[in-house]
Amino acid sequence: MEFYVFTIFPRVVECYAEFGIVRQAINKGKVVIRTIDVRKFAPKGQVDDTAYGGFPGMVLKPEPIFRAYEHVVENYGKPYVLITEPWGRRVDQSFIEGLLKKEKVAIICGRYEGVDERVKSIVDEEVSVGDLILSGGELVALTVIDAVSRLIPGVLSEPRSIEEDSYKGRWLGYPVYTRPREFMGMKVPDVLLSGNHQLIELWKLWHKIENTLRKRPDLIPRDLTEEELEIMESIKKGMSFEEWLRSKNLS
Amino acid sequence: MEFYVFTIFPRVVECYAEFGIVRQAINKGKVVIRTIDVRKFAPKGQVDDTAYGGFPGMVLKPEPIFRAYEHVVENYGKPYVLITEPWGRRVDQSFIEGLLKKEKVAIICGRYEGVDERVKSIVDEEVSVGDLILSGGELVALTVIDAVSRLIPGVLSEPRSIEEDSYKGRWLGYPVYTRPREFMGMKVPDVLLSGNHQLIELWKLWHKIENTLRKRPDLIPRDLTEEELEIMESIKKGMSFEEWLRSKNLS
Repeated sequence: MEFYVFTIFPRVVECYAEFGIVRQAINKGKVVIRTIDVRKFAPKGQVDDTAYGGFPGMVLKPEPIFRAYEHVVENYGKPYVLITEPWGRRVDQSFIEGLLKKEKVAIICGRYEGVDERVKSIVDEEVSVGDLILSGGELVALTVIDAVSRLIPGVLSEPRSIEEDSYKGRWLGYPVYTRPREFMGMKVPDVLLSGNHQLIELWKLWHKIENTLRKRPDLIPRDLTEEELEIMESIKKGMSFEEWLRSKNLS
Repeated sequence: MEFYVFTIFPRVVECYAEFGIVRQAINKGKVVIRTIDVRKFAPKGQVDDTAYGGFPGMVLKPEPIFRAYEHVVENYGKPYVLITEPWGRRVDQSFIEGLLKKEKVAIICGRYEGVDERVKSIVDEEVSVGDLILSGGELVALTVIDAVSRLIPGVLSEPRSIEEDSYKGRWLGYPVYTRPREFMGMKVPDVLLSGNHQLIELWKLWHKIENTLRKRPDLIPRDLTEEELEIMESIKKGMSFEEWLRSKNLS
């Protein structure tokens, strides 16, 4: 998968690609990132100018972006083009999974003051990471690249972990614990140390449901199983997992 | 304002801070960013370990993060603590504005496999940039820092531009244009070149409403003025701005 990132700060993008999952994806030959320095396509390096009609702040000029785009099309082929805009479609996991089907994706990093509207004629989709204003789109571009890269088969050394992702299954994730068993008086839940797989799976399901109920009730699935429904009702009544186990004679 | 970013990739954070608005904020003495390399607080540099109860992937250990946190508290004072989690509160403009009131903010960058749940005992709030899975929280931390930095008085050279931000006013922003007047056959709208300020303001209002109606109808304010309501109805009927002006004998 190839990414073309149109930016006035190519170092920001290159730097992120030197670490973690994105680096792994590049090293394994699964992802190519080409940063397109828009300034190099601007006469005298002038990438922005004042706005017509009066606007406090500068607007990215259309020519450098079009020239940079033509450069990409001529040398590498036509990409699917995203631009970052505060009102763009929110980047979520289903958007990321859809993007996996594209071979070449260009991301034009906007600036908060704005991008000349005529640039939109080459854009397929406007994207954002939520209702907030960033100084530029680089972080949005990197968010897309990071989230896509880890889903490409062969990138993660432990691909099963994707199956446990929040937003992948029916529920958010459950709390996780590692060594030591006790830390500053706080203990790992006994069940997780029990070696009883049936109990452990019940614990995970209970805590997935609890996490979702408490933090993102909007994501509760509509087609609850009997077991899920019963757990949810017990959580709502204020029952703990241990109390619930006892009530079912499972502990 | 001081940020403490707990991360295993400090260079990613430092690199972003070398450019754009965040750099300006630092150079003007408005923002301090201290990257806290969690690895330095880990015995033998081991920051993660396998999960109890079975989990594909590694979990960040509690001690290095607690030690790093104690280091910050002892040397700089107690910060407000955020951690990145996929199910965290979505970072939006009102969250960013709330954060402006804090003096010291720590952001613990999670990893997608997870962070030992006991770390949550020092956390004030879980944050995210939406329903998607990133390999780590660095991009979320930088999103917060960037969005906060540009709002700190004295950082932006053109502070009035904040007033025009989408999510600041009642409506999303309007399309912006800069030179040249005509580019590849695409023209800047005549109104914006007219010098008629009343018309230009109407054009901006119309296009703010159109943008919001088309792209984020959920954000349409409930207390519409008569003018706003009339413009919205005209847009819904398929009228263009120019047709609307003529119908009002304004053009």
